[in-house]
Amino acid sequence: MQIQVVRKILEHNEETAKRLHDTFRSHKTLVINLMSSPGAGKTTLLEATLDTLQRSFNTAVIEGDISTTRDAERIAATGAQTLQINTDGACHLDSSMLLQALEHLDLSSLDLLFIENVGNLVCPAEFDLGEDVTVTLLSVPEGDDKPEKYPGMFAKSHALILNKTDLLPYLSFDVKRAETAARTVNRDLLFFAVSAATGEGLEGWTQWIADRVREKKAA
Amino acid sequence: MQIQVVRKILEHNEETAKRLHDTFRSHKTLVINLMSSPGAGKTTLLEATLDTLQRSFNTAVIEGDISTTRDAERIAATGAQTLQINTDGACHLDSSMLLQALEHLDLSSLDLLFIENVGNLVCPAEFDLGEDVTVTLLSVPEGDDKPEKYPGMFAKSHALILNKTDLLPYLSFDVKRAETAARTVNRDLLFFAVSAATGEGLEGWTQWIADRVREKKAA
Repeated sequence: MQIQVVRKILEHNEETAKRLHDTFRSHKTLVINLMSSPGAGKTTLLEATLDTLQRSFNTAVIEGDISTTRDAERIAATGAQTLQINTDGACHLDSSMLLQALEHLDLSSLDLLFIENVGNLVCPAEFDLGEDVTVTLLSVPEGDDKPEKYPGMFAKSHALILNKTDLLPYLSFDVKRAETAARTVNRDLLFFAVSAATGEGLEGWTQWIADRVREKKAA
Repeated sequence: MQIQVVRKILEHNEETAKRLHDTFRSHKTLVINLMSSPGAGKTTLLEATLDTLQRSFNTAVIEGDISTTRDAERIAATGAQTLQINTDGACHLDSSMLLQALEHLDLSSLDLLFIENVGNLVCPAEFDLGEDVTVTLLSVPEGDDKPEKYPGMFAKSHALILNKTDLLPYLSFDVKRAETAARTVNRDLLFFAVSAATGEGLEGWTQWIADRVREKKAA
């Protein structure tokens, strides 16, 4: 019975996610779901990414948090339109929460929408949000063994961003090992190594997103 | 209906956790549930802790992981009796998993049992394992805002260990701010600042555990 209910919850999520995906397509808005452990640097990456991409694209951010509006305040300071979803204890965003939040956004004016998921390397991977691009952030201090130990999220993602490369000199982290481990789980995974704090390596990532936005506009 | 099922799952977990708690009491084994985000350093802390405590106490470790036996191999190398629970996707340990694992341990010979939970700052906090001591590990690179953003686990814990203090010179992390934020959620929270990698600050933590083990033996 418990398994049936879990399946029902996931099926319901999938149905809503499909509707959202169609909505995003009709508005030609590129939607990116950003997932990671707590403190891997999602918000800092977004701040740096918005700094570049807002020059070219109308961009909004939906901030998913269990509690507080701290991240939303940081993002709003960049000038991007920002919406907060507080999950009130839940360990992930789901497509119904997103559907509700979208009532407050004018998608027709948006080129690009980032969704910052709840910090959790497990549960968010099971809940499709109808996004175009699924991104996992892994930070250097977490260790190069994480793709093997938490394979679900890496298997589901289009891109892996290794963040906090500025800390590589102080830690034993083998970038090649992490990349290989991630590609063992998902051989099509794109890989970017960046430091959101120093800006190192960000051009490749922002250029890739810009290309995806233009591709969707042209489709 | 979904909420009812969730409540049922949690109630069932509580019942088994109570039975486990009684078993641990009758054997006078001190049981510690260690929780944190992925990569906060639970295994490294355990390695360093076992190095000291195994000299005085018969100690075993149960390793909870979604996938792989990497951590269990590291712990087994310290000489401690080690059991692996692979949750096969689940984001936390529960008391039934622990009950099953305990069939393979002789509690009557054990003074101290560590349980390393799945790396996740959210879900494990909801599942009591019948432990005596609940410990949250927070690592410096995760940021000093985590107690506010993920209050559940900090509220439930007896002790907070701030790990990776050796990285403080390279990051903007306000130890006082993190401690205050954690105490706002849980005013009785004990606080240890350590670097499991360098050994800094570990004596306070291991001494505290040793005192708890002796207390339970004497009870």
